[in-house]
Amino acid sequence: MSIMIEGIAASPGICIAKAFKLQHQELHVEKKSIINTAEEIRRFEMMMDKTKTELEGIKAETSQKLGEDKAEIFAAHLLILSDPEFIQPIKDKVTNDSVNAEFALKEVAAMFIGLFENMDNEYMRERAADIRDVTKRLTGHLLGQQVASPNMISEEVVIIAEDLTPSDTAQLNRQYVKGFTTNIGGRTSHSAIMARSMEIPAVVGTKNVMAQIENDMLVIVDGLEGKVIANPTEKEIALYAKKKAAFENQKIEWAKLKNEKTITTDGHQVELAANIGTPADVQGVLENGGEAIGLYRTEFLYMGRSQLPTEEEQFKAYKTVLESMEGKPVVVRTLDIGGDKELHYLDLPKELNPFLGFRAIRLCLSMQDMFRTQLRALLRSSAYGNLKIMFPMIATLDEFRDAKAILLEEKEQLQQMGVQVAENIELGIMVEIPSTAVMADVFAKEVDFFSIGTNDLIQYTLAADRMNERVSYLYQPYNPAILRLIKNVIDAAHNHGKWVGMCGEMAGDEVAIPILLGLGLDEFSMSATSILKARSQISTLSRADMMSIAEKTLVMKNAEEVKQFITSNVLRG
Amino acid sequence: MSIMIEGIAASPGICIAKAFKLQHQELHVEKKSIINTAEEIRRFEMMMDKTKTELEGIKAETSQKLGEDKAEIFAAHLLILSDPEFIQPIKDKVTNDSVNAEFALKEVAAMFIGLFENMDNEYMRERAADIRDVTKRLTGHLLGQQVASPNMISEEVVIIAEDLTPSDTAQLNRQYVKGFTTNIGGRTSHSAIMARSMEIPAVVGTKNVMAQIENDMLVIVDGLEGKVIANPTEKEIALYAKKKAAFENQKIEWAKLKNEKTITTDGHQVELAANIGTPADVQGVLENGGEAIGLYRTEFLYMGRSQLPTEEEQFKAYKTVLESMEGKPVVVRTLDIGGDKELHYLDLPKELNPFLGFRAIRLCLSMQDMFRTQLRALLRSSAYGNLKIMFPMIATLDEFRDAKAILLEEKEQLQQMGVQVAENIELGIMVEIPSTAVMADVFAKEVDFFSIGTNDLIQYTLAADRMNERVSYLYQPYNPAILRLIKNVIDAAHNHGKWVGMCGEMAGDEVAIPILLGLGLDEFSMSATSILKARSQISTLSRADMMSIAEKTLVMKNAEEVKQFITSNVLRG
Repeated sequence: MSIMIEGIAASPGICIAKAFKLQHQELHVEKKSIINTAEEIRRFEMMMDKTKTELEGIKAETSQKLGEDKAEIFAAHLLILSDPEFIQPIKDKVTNDSVNAEFALKEVAAMFIGLFENMDNEYMRERAADIRDVTKRLTGHLLGQQVASPNMISEEVVIIAEDLTPSDTAQLNRQYVKGFTTNIGGRTSHSAIMARSMEIPAVVGTKNVMAQIENDMLVIVDGLEGKVIANPTEKEIALYAKKKAAFENQKIEWAKLKNEKTITTDGHQVELAANIGTPADVQGVLENGGEAIGLYRTEFLYMGRSQLPTEEEQFKAYKTVLESMEGKPVVVRTLDIGGDKELHYLDLPKELNPFLGFRAIRLCLSMQDMFRTQLRALLRSSAYGNLKIMFPMIATLDEFRDAKAILLEEKEQLQQMGVQVAENIELGIMVEIPSTAVMADVFAKEVDFFSIGTNDLIQYTLAADRMNERVSYLYQPYNPAILRLIKNVIDAAHNHGKWVGMCGEMAGDEVAIPILLGLGLDEFSMSATSILKARSQISTLSRADMMSIAEKTLVMKNAEEVKQFITSNVLRG
Repeated sequence: MSIMIEGIAASPGICIAKAFKLQHQELHVEKKSIINTAEEIRRFEMMMDKTKTELEGIKAETSQKLGEDKAEIFAAHLLILSDPEFIQPIKDKVTNDSVNAEFALKEVAAMFIGLFENMDNEYMRERAADIRDVTKRLTGHLLGQQVASPNMISEEVVIIAEDLTPSDTAQLNRQYVKGFTTNIGGRTSHSAIMARSMEIPAVVGTKNVMAQIENDMLVIVDGLEGKVIANPTEKEIALYAKKKAAFENQKIEWAKLKNEKTITTDGHQVELAANIGTPADVQGVLENGGEAIGLYRTEFLYMGRSQLPTEEEQFKAYKTVLESMEGKPVVVRTLDIGGDKELHYLDLPKELNPFLGFRAIRLCLSMQDMFRTQLRALLRSSAYGNLKIMFPMIATLDEFRDAKAILLEEKEQLQQMGVQVAENIELGIMVEIPSTAVMADVFAKEVDFFSIGTNDLIQYTLAADRMNERVSYLYQPYNPAILRLIKNVIDAAHNHGKWVGMCGEMAGDEVAIPILLGLGLDEFSMSATSILKARSQISTLSRADMMSIAEKTLVMKNAEEVKQFITSNVLRG
């Protein structure tokens, strides 16, 4: 009997290979009394140095094998080991409590991990994973024990693990590791992101794959549908071999579209853009045939650090992205912090409803020094490519006007100082708050473009936090209320000769694409890896047909009816 | 020089009198070791009995002087003293820690007060005030000290206090106490509610009235504008004497409208209804000329208790309200719990964004036993008056259909059992989520009426938590986006022959009323004490004029423009 386990599809593709269970041995840390604490601190520092040297080595190797961006995680680990906020409390604990260094490390790390994990913020939870990873490595050295590592694998396997640490994934040998599956993790955990960029199938968050699978069992990982099958039957093996071949053929077909335009069967052209978080993501955009960057999230520049990034740091990042895109449009969103994205060094008060709170443009208009620094960096970078700037979380026209006025002030100052700034930087807003979608006609007179942020727009329009699993069923992209608001935004923009993009998850969704095409969306911005598939889909659709299809969905009763209609009439049609 | 202090207008009216500072003496509780703890517990029980007897006396007196509903607070205090969850830990502490009863009381009370105060929930914070109040009384008896009380006042005064406890307000002698002002509190704190029902002016939340005012200073309390003036100049006294006379004349004028219909100058009639929380509120509705109850919030039946109310308890409450309204319409909203209104005994998980969470109809559709009990109580009560039922927080048509199906099931079962149920109970929904406002045409085919809940609708449409002072500037009732959504709801309803009410604060707002009248709102539901003023305002307006006024506001750029336009063209026009 085969064993079927469901999880989260984290990286597309299918593989069939033997199971290799990656079991990290437990590191037992005991509390010991230390008399010569100065000596213990010297030992701690020695092992820190050893760990750092090791990390430098892995970093260099990763950089060579997988590219510089994949090596960034080890730079983060090295930073943790150099952070006095982390290291000093450990030394203090050794001195004050007369305890051994591994015990002090364990206590301090637990404190930080607890803090970050409870932040209800995916990014900070990932920081907790970094601390856990680096603590394990350092503890191993302090105890004189070898820590398990996947770089010893030398045959074709599927890795089965509780979770993969960033070090684990970086050391995976693509020649032998055909895929992996884990008990924990989500689509945006490090291991999932790494799997996608290594293009190996992965299923995460299965909860019990470690308990259900034994070493050497034959395992199928279906990273398309988030399924793991252990001990498959002959029939299942044949089925998945076929599915694997079909997926790989499809990828070859899609790859042919890389340098093509995105045009419907009746000659209507749209732009397919990508959402990125760091300059390192640009390469993937170009490789996947992205025609633009529709959303450059600048938050990452501000996160995982102890203070605000300088104007110079930001300028370099923006310039790199603009130059790498070689004149293709780059829409940069100004800082969207707050809500679930906290910056501990800003020390913002805790809010009862952070999603309805002091975030993004609200915060930037209040913390103007920070905002002006970002705007200056952006303005300076505009000389190096095709920059467009957009403000997030605009709820009222006054907010847009205020933000624009600040931008123009900084622009004028820079120009007076003789700094080169592009003349016609398009200035737009995210449409992610219902009031702005309703008032699109008023905004359309003053902005250069809209970018519809469906993730938040859906949350607010249906008053449901999609991170809250009890109400996530109300996160309904196909709800006709959402479609009507999108139509209202597009119509208002076109009436005033402006263009409309979309940078929420919906823009890359195969059910939504036909409707959005019909409603007249001009730019679709999505994960880089979704672009070729979307281009392939759009090239089979007729704009005229989609217009009448979209019209019909607007008067439907609920999201389910819309989904079924598109599935039957477009996807299977 | 006069001293001007700003606060929150908690009860309308103006008074001029000498200051009387109500300073509760500090009760110093020391920790003492007790050898005979059994004896200490006996002493504690004796003082409990003494406190209970005293409270029974105050309760009876209050009931006689101010009415039974005002005496309810003392029933709540008595309940606290009878609650083993509060009392047993105190006795346990005396026994286990060998400490004196007043110290044990202090510690246990502090724990509960801390718990309730941190609930970010006005109702629970009021429960904390109750515990503080009853603890003070009991501590006084345990220490053998007399606790200060306002019932010793025997000349005309304005009371100045840090805060007024429920006992304080209940003991205020209306003959002598002309008004009061406090450092803390809000419009919905007990003292504010009591002041309104006693019809004495009050200004609360001044922060520093205790520090700025001395005993016997002459003080003006302006409960209309939330101002307190100490040591007023001759000119100020004259000004406020005039203002006081004008207010009292106006009240006399308004009172003449009590039994009138609400009709515009050109003969268009609307209905003015009241929002209530308990059966005791009905009297105020009738006294203030309410034509209906537009919103009966049933949450209070579920709060401040240790378990769900029985069907019988609920039936009695609903029946009482329906009978007291003598055939006038009563719109009952089914349970709207969750969000900021928690029920500790349901033990719901903490949410990151409770306003976007598992609340109201979402929770009721999941906890069906609880929901069905309420629906049965409502259906049974329908035989005793003009009942209409509405569901809160409807975001999708499916939710309405599901809730309606459950109601019909319960109705059929009751009828099969021979229970009398009214035949045509109108069934409506709250429109407080943007998706529902946008989809009003689809809903209008299936519901009997809409009631627009502007408090939440504004919050969600502008994505701003109005309790969060950093973003409360985005709580904009006059934002044209809100006005457009309201118009969409009203037009959709009228196209299908349905009526539309409004039960948010906006319905009683003098700037909003002209616009709502113009948009065609059928029923305005507000605080009972606002009804006569609204009737007076509407009777001076022409529906035809308001239609063209409203039309103009829909294309304005922002809330400020709307407000100024109405102020100049209608209020001062």
